[in-house]
This record gives sequence, structure tokens and C-alpha cells, in this order.
Amino acid sequence: MAERLTVSIIGVTGYTGLELLRMLLAHPKVDIAYLTSRQHEDTAIGDLYPHLAHLNLRVTDTDHKDVAKDSDVVFLALPHKTAQDVVAEMHGHCKVIDLSADYRLDDLETYEKYYHVPHNHPGLLGQVVYGLPEINREDIRKAVTVANPGCFALLSQLMLLPFAGAIDHADIMAVTGSSGSGKSPSEGTHHPVRSHNFKSYNINAHRHIPEIIRTAQISEAQLNFVPSSGPFVRGIFATAFVRTKDGAHVRCAGDVYDGHPYVRVMEDVALANVVGSNFCDLSFRKISEGNYIVQGVIDNLVKGAAGCAVQNMNLMCGFEETEGLAHLGTVYP
Amino acid sequence: MAERLTVSIIGVTGYTGLELLRMLLAHPKVDIAYLTSRQHEDTAIGDLYPHLAHLNLRVTDTDHKDVAKDSDVVFLALPHKTAQDVVAEMHGHCKVIDLSADYRLDDLETYEKYYHVPHNHPGLLGQVVYGLPEINREDIRKAVTVANPGCFALLSQLMLLPFAGAIDHADIMAVTGSSGSGKSPSEGTHHPVRSHNFKSYNINAHRHIPEIIRTAQISEAQLNFVPSSGPFVRGIFATAFVRTKDGAHVRCAGDVYDGHPYVRVMEDVALANVVGSNFCDLSFRKISEGNYIVQGVIDNLVKGAAGCAVQNMNLMCGFEETEGLAHLGTVYP
Amino acid sequence: MAERLTVSIIGVTGYTGLELLRMLLAHPKVDIAYLTSRQHEDTAIGDLYPHLAHLNLRVTDTDHKDVAKDSDVVFLALPHKTAQDVVAEMHGHCKVIDLSADYRLDDLETYEKYYHVPHNHPGLLGQVVYGLPEINREDIRKAVTVANPGCFALLSQLMLLPFAGAIDHADIMAVTGSSGSGKSPSEGTHHPVRSHNFKSYNINAHRHIPEIIRTAQISEAQLNFVPSSGPFVRGIFATAFVRTKDGAHVRCAGDVYDGHPYVRVMEDVALANVVGSNFCDLSFRKISEGNYIVQGVIDNLVKGAAGCAVQNMNLMCGFEETEGLAHLGTVYP
Amino acid sequence: MAERLTVSIIGVTGYTGLELLRMLLAHPKVDIAYLTSRQHEDTAIGDLYPHLAHLNLRVTDTDHKDVAKDSDVVFLALPHKTAQDVVAEMHGHCKVIDLSADYRLDDLETYEKYYHVPHNHPGLLGQVVYGLPEINREDIRKAVTVANPGCFALLSQLMLLPFAGAIDHADIMAVTGSSGSGKSPSEGTHHPVRSHNFKSYNINAHRHIPEIIRTAQISEAQLNFVPSSGPFVRGIFATAFVRTKDGAHVRCAGDVYDGHPYVRVMEDVALANVVGSNFCDLSFRKISEGNYIVQGVIDNLVKGAAGCAVQNMNLMCGFEETEGLAHLGTVYP
Repeated sequence: MAERLTVSIIGVTGYTGLELLRMLLAHPKVDIAYLTSRQHEDTAIGDLYPHLAHLNLRVTDTDHKDVAKDSDVVFLALPHKTAQDVVAEMHGHCKVIDLSADYRLDDLETYEKYYHVPHNHPGLLGQVVYGLPEINREDIRKAVTVANPGCFALLSQLMLLPFAGAIDHADIMAVTGSSGSGKSPSEGTHHPVRSHNFKSYNINAHRHIPEIIRTAQISEAQLNFVPSSGPFVRGIFATAFVRTKDGAHVRCAGDVYDGHPYVRVMEDVALANVVGSNFCDLSFRKISEGNYIVQGVIDNLVKGAAGCAVQNMNLMCGFEETEGLAHLGTVYP
Repeated sequence: MAERLTVSIIGVTGYTGLELLRMLLAHPKVDIAYLTSRQHEDTAIGDLYPHLAHLNLRVTDTDHKDVAKDSDVVFLALPHKTAQDVVAEMHGHCKVIDLSADYRLDDLETYEKYYHVPHNHPGLLGQVVYGLPEINREDIRKAVTVANPGCFALLSQLMLLPFAGAIDHADIMAVTGSSGSGKSPSEGTHHPVRSHNFKSYNINAHRHIPEIIRTAQISEAQLNFVPSSGPFVRGIFATAFVRTKDGAHVRCAGDVYDGHPYVRVMEDVALANVVGSNFCDLSFRKISEGNYIVQGVIDNLVKGAAGCAVQNMNLMCGFEETEGLAHLGTVYP
Repeated sequence: MAERLTVSIIGVTGYTGLELLRMLLAHPKVDIAYLTSRQHEDTAIGDLYPHLAHLNLRVTDTDHKDVAKDSDVVFLALPHKTAQDVVAEMHGHCKVIDLSADYRLDDLETYEKYYHVPHNHPGLLGQVVYGLPEINREDIRKAVTVANPGCFALLSQLMLLPFAGAIDHADIMAVTGSSGSGKSPSEGTHHPVRSHNFKSYNINAHRHIPEIIRTAQISEAQLNFVPSSGPFVRGIFATAFVRTKDGAHVRCAGDVYDGHPYVRVMEDVALANVVGSNFCDLSFRKISEGNYIVQGVIDNLVKGAAGCAVQNMNLMCGFEETEGLAHLGTVYP
Repeated sequence: MAERLTVSIIGVTGYTGLELLRMLLAHPKVDIAYLTSRQHEDTAIGDLYPHLAHLNLRVTDTDHKDVAKDSDVVFLALPHKTAQDVVAEMHGHCKVIDLSADYRLDDLETYEKYYHVPHNHPGLLGQVVYGLPEINREDIRKAVTVANPGCFALLSQLMLLPFAGAIDHADIMAVTGSSGSGKSPSEGTHHPVRSHNFKSYNINAHRHIPEIIRTAQISEAQLNFVPSSGPFVRGIFATAFVRTKDGAHVRCAGDVYDGHPYVRVMEDVALANVVGSNFCDLSFRKISEGNYIVQGVIDNLVKGAAGCAVQNMNLMCGFEETEGLAHLGTVYP
């Protein structure tokens, strides 16, 4: 176990990269080595992001091999497809936490079906550990490379986990804030529109579905998944209507999540309770035999991305799982 | 059929009353007689609402009998319970459109169960017509007194109507903006909180449930209804997961709503498409045999309240159903 | 004076064009002839804008000459520079209301300095009437072609008008909502950023400055103008600190605006009072001799663009100035 | 100098108290002793604030003497007037940082004029150090009791400081988010209104004025101060138009703020750059001789309240001034 770690972020300029940076700067046991971006050849970070003007850090386009050589842990905040080769190049040279979708699925066919691109390193799919601590904690501790879950996928899995194997059908309506669409302006994130709008997209076709059904032990046909976008910036609020099979055993959520520091099982959830923090709050309501309403909230950029990645780093490197993750958001309920 | 109508609003100072006033001012065939409020004894409306400073109108506490005597149509924008006696007093003396909940249900027991108050005029329950034009148009034309639907109820009914009689179970997640809570400040509508929050309330216990199940021809046990509040001001966005009974006949939504001027059946709905207007947009997706996803949007204060009330007035008084209702919102998608 | 008018919008697909359409649809005495856009070759408007799906209107790329021939009034909602030739082509063939900046300034040099493009029709600059009814009402009544004011410019002029000729120096801080940036997504209107941001831009270099100083009868050096963008969609809120010359005569604002239907002089202004309406609300505070604080609010898309254009149309065509402009916004204070 | 400190918050349940708690929990060298509130007699903090459900902390109504006895530093987050006696009671028994207004002014008459209440401990006014580190750093290091500045006042002082003694007149327009109004719902913070509104209040009568003029070395008559409320939650954005006296010496802002860790002098400021952080960003523009435009931004709850208080604690207790204050906000520009 290290006393301190040297860490780097590849692809620091997107929202996930910036959020990772925010969180790593608050971590008492890490030092930043490289912050890289292909678009910037050695630029003071304050020139790109004035809110970071006080930091003596530079964004560079350093070669990935040099990054790997000089870092204990490298975070990849790259688009899917791009990350395929970078992970393959780094795997085994340093600890890698990949926040893209490229190694989340262990099945080549499913990957290619949902992401519409071939995978250059199918042999590596089975070697990367799926980085959902609440399910894979022990494997993550031993992992060399970890694939961080998708944000909708992480929340939905934690909502359905107590029902795994017992589900007849589940219908999920999940709404995310605009930060989920990343930092590139688009019609869907144009302020005059998004400020008053609410709509769904990719119904039953969202890429996070295979992660969800794997954990819930259901088929695609047993899940309706309605991703939606709402007029706010951060967070996901999800509601699941779960029907269980006759006589199936549903585990007590309180038991399932006992000892997991970032899942709070509560009577009611509210988005503002988790924005800015690494918590996933969940509520479970039994309406009648076999009929449940489950709700959950996370900050999509924290527990749904950078916070979970830091939690994984802590596990992989022998730190306390909660090290550097105590911060609360600036949004109060 | 009148050429012009003289209309009054009892309880003008709440959001529903103000929205009625906004719409009636834009109606080419009505003149305002009285705008009443118990709290204001003859006050220029601009002194209460500076955005109306240009209007030569006064808010008074005129006796209801005088209002009835001098008005062709009276709109009641009062809290439930309060409206019970006022409707009884006015019924038959002028046309009445009651926007409260007091006469929406024809069954005394259901009313008292959901509203936790006795009803002083149970005999009148059966005489008031439920003012949902898409279901009751002909009865509304002949009605003396109409009960305007609840906002969640109106939208949910229109979403489930094509499935009426064929539903095994339906699960609805519906989110409303903060204007739905009225004009009195409260914790749930405190700007620092509401701006970032999303939560549900009154799950399976909302007062609009009996209106919904009556139209959908289901029992309480066949419906999960999750009312939620989101970080926006106007509108309701609802998603229904509908499972139909084996072999049950589902009507084609396009047919059901053909000729209804304020229902638009679309491939996809978006909240911003209807904010400020009287439209209800609906989408119907058949996922597999017996498995449907239905989504709908309305402006809670227009189609969900004042707009539907004006539509009812038009029907009751022999105007074109769409008279004075063409305005679009100032929110563009 | 016409009983009814046939009107067209050239460039209907931007926010100004759509707002014009919204307002003209609510005008009782106009019929729409053409809605044109260079990008769309005969498309149902509902295919472009689902919120207009109920309208039986098409967007076409009809030749401007045909538009002029078949229209009593043509509204141009084109970018500056593009409008130069279109106005020149149409001038005299029908009444034209140009919402671009191309003919707002009567001085070629000033135009070219602020807009950084040459003007193809300098001879026409003096023939187009500046369309600010509160200053030019009688000229507008007789005008063939009118140039609609800029939004910041309109509000600032109305704030400074009572001080015209008496100003020593004026400092204006004016903040606009995101709709002022138009419908093209950009970094400044990216929802995750804009929702929490507030900043200024083009300080003392904004293109609306020459319109303001012409009316206020001051030089550039006597004005500080700080345009700012705030985290809201619609409206402009402006504060002016006005110092008058020793002994200069300041007119009473109440007198200046008496009889102007869309200016309300109030003790206090609030943005929500005017959003969605054609009103400009103004407050004037004399702090001490020669020291004034003036505040004003408009909806940038209504009084600051489409509403003022309709007001101009009414004047040019002999209608009541207020015809079709009574609608109030859906935002309540 | 202590290795660690034991700290308490009196009045933890308001927004300032909660923000202090958030920041102190992130401080590596403090332990929480008491969190008190008169309204709660020994309640788990998670029962009051579900977002804090994971914390093993209680809110109590512990006697102030016991709090003082067991704490190295006590933060007072009480309303003004209430804090008068509590400060007097605690002064000298432990270090006290008072976030109320009661000891900000050293002049009894000015206090009573602006706050409309008598002061019970006028003799103490001169003994409490004004806690603005950028002005009083050395006095704060030696202070027993510190009065934390008002949020508008802090920002305005830092904007005007380089001009101190040289100002002919200054006009400030400063807009704050809704969190500035505290946690009690009111008309001005009702979500349906505040979401779209922008208005000013207490023009030239705000209680923060005497703090500003003292530092800027001007009289009330030389300042116009226009406090405003905008449609956002956190932060203050201020614009000052500063006219200096003929020939007066204005200091270089870069020099003035050199070595001050939480003031960044930048070409342009933007609110989102500081939300959630302890930074005050400032820009200074010389327009012409004697004519300056200055803009500044802070988070009203951090640098404008709790962050500055922690900065003061660090100074008073011999910690690094920046200890525990490195966190950045979750809002990215």
C-alpha cells in the first residue's frame, strides 16, 4: 500500500475529466502528474479554465507511454471507441481506471450491438474488472484495470440489485441533468430550450441497458428503460416499477447495502440530497405482493463517474474506500 | 347562443385565478364583470399585481349572489372544501365552472376518503358534469355546472383512455413544475431548494387517483401513481407503463383523438411543446404484445386548469370550442 | 386603412421569426401568406417545430419578389448584412419591417465602424424610418420601410429619453436572458454553464451603443454600457446611473410617457412583470440634484423585437396601435 | 498553535450554519464539538437534513457557556440582534467568529441607524476585529473575537479597495442569488416567481453600505448602491462604475492583491468561476482618466460567509490561511 499516489488524467478537458480533477485535488493522498488533452499542447490550465487560474498545472499532449511510466494510476476520460486502444496500450503498465464504455461489457457481441463499432481488443474484455464497488469490491481491490460504470447503469443496478434473479419485469423512468450530455453545446442542451423542457430519448435502446440487465439477471424483454432529460444540470432521479416472479425471494435492501459507505437506504429520496456528493440514495416500497416501487438518486458526475472512479482508486491502492470522498455538495435540501 | 358573455372569477388572486384572467382577457367574446377575493375589499388589480397595472379592473369582495346575478358564467378558483357551498349557492343561477376538486367525483365515499372532509351537498354530486371535453363533450354542452378536472388527472386520463377496460396494470410516473403548488411560498417551493431538486410525494395516495381509475376502468390496486415535483415552473410530463389483459382490445389512439382540437398524438412528446398552450401532446409506443409505454405533456395551468375551463365555457355557451384558445406559449423547443 | 392584412415573414426559423409568427397568429386582423427560410424547401412547419404541429402552414424558400407581390407587410427576421440587399429589393414594393440592424443607423460611417461590414445601399439609410414608436410614432405611420430597434437599444433609449440633452454621463448595466443569443447553440448558451453563470461582454463596444447615444444626445465618451448575460431565458433588466449637467432640465418621465400604451412608469420594476408581454416598465429615482437611478425591463423578444414590430405594423397600416398585442406572459410575479 | 481544533457552530440550521458545517467537515484539522439550535433538543442531524444522514452528529440546544468551555473556536450563525448578547457572553472565553452583523460596525450610531435596534454592548464594538483578511490580516491573527463581513459588503470593499481615498463617486449594481435570503420561504424566493424574475431592493438603503464606505473612504452621498436579486441560487455579481477625484492616486489592483490567496485579479470575471469556492475574482478596467469599470464575483455563502469565516479561523489559530479551503465548486464555466 502506497502512502501517496501519483495520478494522471487522460482527457482532462471534458466534464468527466474536470470533475476527476476537482476530486483528486481534494484527495489528501494523491499528487497530479499529467493532465492530457490532444487538443492542447502545453497550456496553463487557467488559460483554458479560468476557475482553475490559481493552480500551477498544465495541460499537455504527453505521450500515453510517458504518462503510464510516471503514474501509479491513470484515469481515462475519453470517448468510447477512442479508449479501446489507449486502455490496451496501458494495461499492465500502471493501474488504469477507464471511464469510457469500452470495457464495461465482457461480451463482444453485446458491445458491438449497442455501440455500433468493432472492438479492437476483444481478448482484453474479460480481463478488465467492472468497477461497481457495491458488487465487485473484492475484485476491484485486486484489479489492474477497471471499467467505471455508466451513470444510468450504476444507479439502475443499485436499484435492482436486491431483486436480482427475482424479477418478472421492471420498468425504469430515469431523468438526468444536462451535464450528462458533456461539454459540447448542442440543440438538446441549448439554454433557452433546456431550461423549460423535459423529454425522453433512446427508449429501450440506451447503451447502459446491457450493464443493467446483467446485474439484474433479466433479459432485454423484461426491462423497459426510459432515459429522459430534465431542466437541471446535475444528477439522476430514477423510478423503477418492479414486478417479481411469483414466490421469488427479494432480499432486504437494508441488508444488501449494509456496510457500503456510499449507499444510503432511506424512506424517501430527493435529488438535492446527493448533488455534489458520492452518495447513492435509494428507497424501496413494497406496494403489494410482487409489486415494488424503487427510487434512486445520484450525482451523475460524482457517484455516476468521477467519484466512483476515485472510490475504485482507493480500493485498488489499499486506501480507505472513503478517502478524499467526504465532500458534500453546495446544494441543500 | 350568446354573441358575447359576461364572466366573473371568484378567487382571482391564486395562480389558477390569474391564469383564468390572462386567458379571458385574450378571449374575443367575453367581458369581465367581477374579480373577487375575500382578502381584498375593492382594490385596483395593478396594486396587487403590478404586471396588470395597465388594466382598469378591480378586485372586490362582492357577494356571490350579486356575482351570479350579473354574470353569464362564473369561474370558481377556490380551494377544495371552500367551493362546496359556493357551487351549491350558485348552481342554477348562472353557468358555473368549478376548478376546485369538490364536484369532480360523483361518489361521496370516495370524495370523503381522498379529501378527508365531509361533503355538505352530496345530492349535487351527480348533477355536476365532469369537465373533460375529450370524454364528456356532449354533456358539457348541456351542462349548467361543470367540475374542471385535476391537472394530473386530466393528463393521466387522456393517456389511458385508449386502453380503457383493457388494462391489467398501469404504472404512472408524472412530474410537475412548481406552479402546481400554488402561490403560497413553502419549503417545497423555496427557490434555493426547488431549483436543484427532484422528488416524489403522495405515492399511490394522490387525490387525483379516483378520477384516473374511473376513466381507465381499473381498481386502485391496478394503478401505481407516482406524483413528483421537478425543478421547473410550468407543465407536467408523465410516463405510463401499461400492461393490458391478455387478448384485450386496445383502441388506436389516432382514432380516439381524431377531431379533438387540443390533443395531438405524436411520435415523441416534449414538455416545451405545450407550455403556455392548451395542447395535450401524447405518444403511444407498443413495445410488445400487451406492453405499452405512453407519454404525455400538458401545461398544468392551461390545459390542466384555466385553458380547459375556457374550453368548457366555449362548449357550454355555444362558441367554437377553440375560441380564444389559439395562443401559444413563449417557450420554444 | 385595410380591414385585414396579408403578411409574410422572411427568415421564420430563428427565435425572432418564431416569435413574430406567435404574435401574428394571435393578431385578429392578419393572414399569413409566406413563411420563408433559405434552408427549407417547402416543409410543413410542424415537421420543423412540433409545437406548431396543429398549424396548416408551410415553410418555403419562395423568391422574395413573389413574397413582396403577395404581401401587404413583410417582416424580415434575417441576420444583419444579409438584410441589406433584401430590404433594398423590397423597399417600395410592400411595407417592410426589418428586424435586422442594417438600417437602424442613418450614418454610413457609424454602421461600418460598429458592424465591420460595408453597406451596399448607403443611399437607402436615410429613407428607412427608425421604428421606435415612443419617439417616431408619426413618421412610422407614414413609413414604407421601418427598421426595428435593437433590444438593448430600445430599452436604454426609453430609460434615457427624459434626460435627452441634459446628460453629463450615464452608466448602464443591462443583463439579458439566453434567448437574446438566438437559436444556435454555443458555449455561452450551453445549459450546464449558463444555468449558473453571470458575466459581461463587449463592454463599451456593443453594437447597440450608437442607437442609444443618438437618442440621448450624448457622445460615446459620455456613456459606459455594460451588456451582460444572466441565467434566465427571456428579458432584459437594465440599471442606469445618470448624472445630468449642472442646471440642465430633466423632463418628468410621467409626462414623457403619458399616452404611450406600452410604457409603464412605476415605482419599482421587476422583470417578471413584463416577460411575454409588449410592456416596457420604467422607474426613475432622483437621488440628489443631478444624480438619478433609472431602471427598466422588457421582454427582449417581444417589446425588444417581435412585439415592437407588430406595434409598428399597426401604426403603418392604420390599425389601433394596440391591436393584437394585449396578451400577457405566462410568468407571474 | 494548535495541531487540531475543537469547533462548534451556534445556529447550525440556517444556510450559513449548514455551509459552515460543510466546510468544517472538509477541514483536515478540526473536530466538531457542538452544533446547536434553539429549536431542536438533541436530534440526529440526519433527521433534520437527510443529505447529512451518514453523519454521526447531533443538533442540541446546549447552553452557550458549555459550548464555549468545550470549544477552541465557536462560530455564531445567528440573526443580528440575537448575536449581540451571545457574543458578549462568549467574548474572551473562547475564540469567536460572529457571522451576524452585530459587531461589524465600530460606531454605535451607525449600527442603530442601519439596523433599527439598540445595541446592548456598545463597549464591545471596538474590541471585535472586522474579519476581512485582505484588509485586517494581522489584526485577525491576534483577535479573540472576529466579526465576519456581510456578503455584499465584502465584495464591494474588495472592488473599491484600490481606489480608497481617491473616489469622487461610485455606483454599484450588485445582484445576488436566492440563497442570500436564507432558508425561510418567502414571496421573493417562491420558485415560480424567482425563477424568472430580476429586481432591485433597498436601493441606497442596504445595511451593508456602512461597511463599504468605511473601507472606500467615502460618504454615503458618494455611493449609489443597488442591491438586486436574480434568478439563480448562489453567488453575487457586482459592477461598479468608479469616478476618481482629479489627480487622485489609484493603486494597481495587481499590487494590492498580490499575495492574497483568495483574490484573483482577472481580465474578465464570470460568476460560475467562483461558485462553491472561496475565491473572489475581480476585474478592473480603466476606460479613461478617472473613469473605471470594476466587476467582481463571489459565492455569497463561501467567500461571502462561511469560507471567509474558516479563513479567519485559520488566521486566528495559526494554521495556513488556505487550510481546508481548497475545494472547488461543482459548477463549471
